[in-house]
Amino acid sequence: MVDRAPSLTGAGANWLTASEAASQIKAGDLTCESLVTACLDRWRARNDEVRAWTHLDPEQVLSAARACDDAGGAGPLRGIPIGVKDIITTHDMPTRFNSPHFQDHFPNIDAASVATLRLAGAVMMGKCDTVEFAINGRRAATRNPYDPSRTPGGSSSGSAAAVADGQVPIALGTQTGGSVIRPASYCGVYAIKPTWNAVSAEGFKVCSASIDTLGWYARSAEDLDLVAEVFAIHDDETPAYESLSGMRFGFCQTPVWDQAEAETRAAMARLADLLREAGATIVELELPPEFAGLASAHKVVMQAEMRSAFLAESRRLGNALYPEMVGILANKDGHRRADLVAAQDLAASCRKSFDALAAGFDAVVTPSTAGVAPKGPDDTGAATFNRMWTLLHTPCVNVPGFCGPQGLPLGLTLTGPRFHDRHLIAAAGLVGELVAARAEA
Amino acid sequence: MVDRAPSLTGAGANWLTASEAASQIKAGDLTCESLVTACLDRWRARNDEVRAWTHLDPEQVLSAARACDDAGGAGPLRGIPIGVKDIITTHDMPTRFNSPHFQDHFPNIDAASVATLRLAGAVMMGKCDTVEFAINGRRAATRNPYDPSRTPGGSSSGSAAAVADGQVPIALGTQTGGSVIRPASYCGVYAIKPTWNAVSAEGFKVCSASIDTLGWYARSAEDLDLVAEVFAIHDDETPAYESLSGMRFGFCQTPVWDQAEAETRAAMARLADLLREAGATIVELELPPEFAGLASAHKVVMQAEMRSAFLAESRRLGNALYPEMVGILANKDGHRRADLVAAQDLAASCRKSFDALAAGFDAVVTPSTAGVAPKGPDDTGAATFNRMWTLLHTPCVNVPGFCGPQGLPLGLTLTGPRFHDRHLIAAAGLVGELVAARAEA
Repeated sequence: MVDRAPSLTGAGANWLTASEAASQIKAGDLTCESLVTACLDRWRARNDEVRAWTHLDPEQVLSAARACDDAGGAGPLRGIPIGVKDIITTHDMPTRFNSPHFQDHFPNIDAASVATLRLAGAVMMGKCDTVEFAINGRRAATRNPYDPSRTPGGSSSGSAAAVADGQVPIALGTQTGGSVIRPASYCGVYAIKPTWNAVSAEGFKVCSASIDTLGWYARSAEDLDLVAEVFAIHDDETPAYESLSGMRFGFCQTPVWDQAEAETRAAMARLADLLREAGATIVELELPPEFAGLASAHKVVMQAEMRSAFLAESRRLGNALYPEMVGILANKDGHRRADLVAAQDLAASCRKSFDALAAGFDAVVTPSTAGVAPKGPDDTGAATFNRMWTLLHTPCVNVPGFCGPQGLPLGLTLTGPRFHDRHLIAAAGLVGELVAARAEA
Repeated sequence: MVDRAPSLTGAGANWLTASEAASQIKAGDLTCESLVTACLDRWRARNDEVRAWTHLDPEQVLSAARACDDAGGAGPLRGIPIGVKDIITTHDMPTRFNSPHFQDHFPNIDAASVATLRLAGAVMMGKCDTVEFAINGRRAATRNPYDPSRTPGGSSSGSAAAVADGQVPIALGTQTGGSVIRPASYCGVYAIKPTWNAVSAEGFKVCSASIDTLGWYARSAEDLDLVAEVFAIHDDETPAYESLSGMRFGFCQTPVWDQAEAETRAAMARLADLLREAGATIVELELPPEFAGLASAHKVVMQAEMRSAFLAESRRLGNALYPEMVGILANKDGHRRADLVAAQDLAASCRKSFDALAAGFDAVVTPSTAGVAPKGPDDTGAATFNRMWTLLHTPCVNVPGFCGPQGLPLGLTLTGPRFHDRHLIAAAGLVGELVAARAEA
């Protein structure tokens, strides 16, 4: 079980949120070096059990932190260490995709997202383990910080676990199915998968170009917001929620509700009760029947786009790739181009209608996962409750704080219309506070 | 004026199409080295006038060609030299975007497209000049091979000119507005902008992720097809056209027809006559009124997506970027997120309706450019007639062979439903042959 009691002095600085740490650094109450040292201490203490990183060079990180202390400056993330999923290029570290075929892969350029974070003063802590190519195949070595026999979820396994375990306050992930939100739910942290292309995908390994989305993990909604501001994610209107009272929430079971386990059903019911008690309005949101086609549309889009994304790998490596990938790249399901076009057109049509439906709510609440983290490492859980939203391009925020069997963490998703990311983060902050307060009560 | 009389022996091998050269190499009648030597000779003779390349190292290219000769192998592009637009990464050459801020930029990885071509046996000849970031700003140094006082078009300026001038049989370009098709029209060569994401965009500089498209230039439709096969671009049905007789062509003036100059109007009329004489059916295709909104939707999408794509450059370089780009990145037009969503939804809806409209034809004929190449270098022409198709994701093939004032080349576009690329290439071959035959008559 994670030691969740941060001490705000000395070695406990690794438990500070990024917002707290940035503020202390700015005030001169904390150095970048001491923050990074605390994170490294936590990593050393816990790495044998959690195994979140594929590359972490303490000297490299400390040297970057000292450079931050020397340089000063007003970057909003100055001195904040950030974990980077190992499908995202970093000019000073290898990028291996957890593929046996890319163990010597060392692109010398930063992904657009990494470049932006560095310009804001952040220190890249290292590379976080991932499921192979962020798809399937080899599992991350990472284990769930709450129970090492369980998966942290995939594919952004190391990113979610590192943040949950206090080894780093922020980490980047990517999502094509449920690879950001699922690990957040299993590891009990906040995460956002923003609106598609709100953050540039340049420099992370493409899987399915029309849906791949960069996201990030944090231990508070405030931290999600801090990074969203760095990425210049602005809604048309600035959110101005003062309390949950009077807010409107749509509860959406989705067409795959029959796959929700007891703890997820209970969390949905519990949150509805808490929100009602807090003065919010709860409305069941039923999706139009055509949304039932989105799960299979997601599969068609992802597999077809993988065939263009991985054409060179397919030609070069052939059957040396893992068997399921070989089958997809050979189009063993026999999808036609017409199927892809129909899937894209259905997705586009549902994007427009979901935006209209969701516009009546401050947020739409929906499951993040079917239940708590399954036993790992082979089973990393399923993206059942995430795929539809990824295909719809909607922002999704995981709100942690719910509890399943054996005290394992569980989250719920807030989603809404495209480019309402900041509204969702703000709502998630209020909802997360309520859930945490009532869990303690 | 280009010397258009290829000699098939010795120094004239540079004028072979890629298909011809590949076939001779396979038969042992031509070595990769002699082909590349002929291309280098042409480059030396013409470079002062045409200036198509930003990086071309003869020793590097010859060494790669000799390695091809030594290795043998059955790659469909074995020994074929290919020009690479200088926004596409190549592990062994710099990638400078024609930006003053990236002159030392040397990513050590191949773009997905380049990796695929190399695996097919191709030799990367060098990097072709481009308009800055493939958008605007600095112009390529390249001049139109038919008249050095004129532009080759932008932004894939060097790629189109190098192929037109016989310096290389194939070159890669990219299109976000009209950057593949416009230079093809101005330089009198074939080119395809395939269906969006039919070829992976990984590794070329992102401008507008939802519409950026990789394409290529060649001196025959057969060569477009050869490369399409290497990129695994397959339609659901294999095209089986035997002659133009009985084929159906939609003629689409588009909502911007009032900007077509006399030579483009004449070319459209001339092609309609030729096709009718050849036994094809010609139908005027009028687009539904909502298509008139696509030009402004394209602008909204491109500018909004540039703001995420170039966020790091904006933060790092600020006002050192060229002024128009600074304005776009600062959103001086005040576009809202709602405008972007509306533009994306309009595009998606028109994609579906255009596919249905175009399904009644073997190809839709439409202008490639308003007219012939304008005087350069500042004016690189306009993407007026291309933007709509880029936003619609439809494949577009430029068919050369028409003539404007002073004998300058002019092309027309064949377009059609998404993922009908191979049908369009096949139709373009027949149409191009007809036009060439009747131009000689």
